[in-house]
Amino acid sequence: MQDLNTLKSILEKYREVSTFSRHPKELYDPANYIMGLGGKRMRPLLVLAAYQMFRASQVKEALPLAYAVEVFHNFTLVHDDIMDDAPIRRGQPTVHTKWDANTAILSGDVMLIAAYESLMQFKGEAQLPRLIRVFNRVAREVCEGQQMDMNFENDSNVTIDNYLRMIELKTAVLLGGSLEMGAIGAGAKEEDIMHLSEFGRFIGIAFQLQDDLLDTFGDSKKFGKKIGGDIVQNKKTFLILKAYELGDPDQVARLKALMQTPTTQEDEKIKKTTGLLTELEIPHHAAVLRDEYRDKAFRHLEQVDTRDEEKQLLYDMTEWVFSREK
Amino acid sequence: MQDLNTLKSILEKYREVSTFSRHPKELYDPANYIMGLGGKRMRPLLVLAAYQMFRASQVKEALPLAYAVEVFHNFTLVHDDIMDDAPIRRGQPTVHTKWDANTAILSGDVMLIAAYESLMQFKGEAQLPRLIRVFNRVAREVCEGQQMDMNFENDSNVTIDNYLRMIELKTAVLLGGSLEMGAIGAGAKEEDIMHLSEFGRFIGIAFQLQDDLLDTFGDSKKFGKKIGGDIVQNKKTFLILKAYELGDPDQVARLKALMQTPTTQEDEKIKKTTGLLTELEIPHHAAVLRDEYRDKAFRHLEQVDTRDEEKQLLYDMTEWVFSREK
Repeated sequence: MQDLNTLKSILEKYREVSTFSRHPKELYDPANYIMGLGGKRMRPLLVLAAYQMFRASQVKEALPLAYAVEVFHNFTLVHDDIMDDAPIRRGQPTVHTKWDANTAILSGDVMLIAAYESLMQFKGEAQLPRLIRVFNRVAREVCEGQQMDMNFENDSNVTIDNYLRMIELKTAVLLGGSLEMGAIGAGAKEEDIMHLSEFGRFIGIAFQLQDDLLDTFGDSKKFGKKIGGDIVQNKKTFLILKAYELGDPDQVARLKALMQTPTTQEDEKIKKTTGLLTELEIPHHAAVLRDEYRDKAFRHLEQVDTRDEEKQLLYDMTEWVFSREK
Repeated sequence: MQDLNTLKSILEKYREVSTFSRHPKELYDPANYIMGLGGKRMRPLLVLAAYQMFRASQVKEALPLAYAVEVFHNFTLVHDDIMDDAPIRRGQPTVHTKWDANTAILSGDVMLIAAYESLMQFKGEAQLPRLIRVFNRVAREVCEGQQMDMNFENDSNVTIDNYLRMIELKTAVLLGGSLEMGAIGAGAKEEDIMHLSEFGRFIGIAFQLQDDLLDTFGDSKKFGKKIGGDIVQNKKTFLILKAYELGDPDQVARLKALMQTPTTQEDEKIKKTTGLLTELEIPHHAAVLRDEYRDKAFRHLEQVDTRDEEKQLLYDMTEWVFSREK
């Protein structure tokens, strides 16, 4: 069995030889740019980790699946960044900023197609139709999650359930799908495929709740981006929605007023909102819910029928993501 | 064997029951809108026509492939219309005009995924991997063609060969791919698959050259849109590039000056450009090249190993497209 660093290095080598080299270069340069910006490569690592639970000696066979998932994820980043008008991604200019929106649309499109091309490189032809069906379902759900996220901007009645469903679709199903695809590709038993998929889905929701917490209450150095971004963008995260639920009428009114404060008073807005959330013990409630999802996730992982040492990598990865802070 | 009108009606019924009915509706309404705007449905009809050459009694089996190709084509229209800033499509507001660019990006994305989902509905599991590979190749080439088209806007050295390659990728490969997929799905022989694919590719180039001709020299009533659109948009079509080739230095200079005339003097610009192209007998040259491609296409169709009556539908469709005028 390969450890996390070995898997990362196998993956990086594969990505380097898979650089888009076709013409016209105006189409493929942006794809190579975003793929080269790095990131945790969590999704392809999940594919590889699941695959080697069942076919440890042959983990390289899963590289086309792992790469497909990473290309797909990067396609969503390119298009989401246009929709969110985001200038920076991983500390560098976003594709539509460095080039333009049209380039970002079309390069994103070809990346989505390239993800399917990568899937088709997988040698297990017998499993391919099922792999593509899982990939289709996940890809569609990620779009549905992004649409829900955009709808929330103009919806004053977002519930916590709506929010949890949105992050499940936008983020968690792809983590579940990555593990599911790794397990299917390796020929795992149905029950193990299901438990790994559910592990990924629940841990994905936990990761997103953690991300919400860090965005407001994290240490900017460790978190790697400015604290308070969600507040500035008036994002209806779990933190805000929980505060609406727990606050008295005065607190809710103050929070709603803050959510409408123009962004010229950013620091003041972040400070006051954070204060209100702290007053209501929202960080505690978010941590409790996060841990509930993490525990649900672990209960599924426990039921996967392999030795503990083969699950260790997934525990390590979970630890690694959560330990970014706190 | 079903005739063209019967195939169209089978296809329309299938489209109606395939309406996107999932949530969130903000994501799927635009997809249903563009799919409902009509159009000639040429690509899915080509899939069905090719399929029934080899499995005449079972043409309905090919509907998931036909629908996939039509959904893909409509996805490209949604995204291309954003990139081209086009307000009208089939006489109605484009998706990004009726909704907004973000909606058009994301709905387009989910349509591309839906095209793959439709492919996966095809019952011939044995042929699926090959069908997906053909679809991937064609989809990627269509993006490459669109990028070349965008590059040409700022390129003063576009050659006729560049142009023909661009329309081949942007338009013709999808017609070839539609026939190819129909033939593969029906289990045709390799040679027949190849000849049908080549027929589609060459006839697609001929169609586009015809379209270029009609855009400048057509009858606006029969053509269904305003004459001179390409001239107003300074498009470097075959007509313009051929005029650069055949014109004397003075004519080329006049044409280049016209291509830089601001669009406030639209009618004047169309009239003068059309006059210059006529002076150089460009319509004749375009018709000759169009007919060369049409004849090449027919030579491939002749070599397909079926009875003439089974090819008749493809001759009819060709006739139908060309007879829109002239």
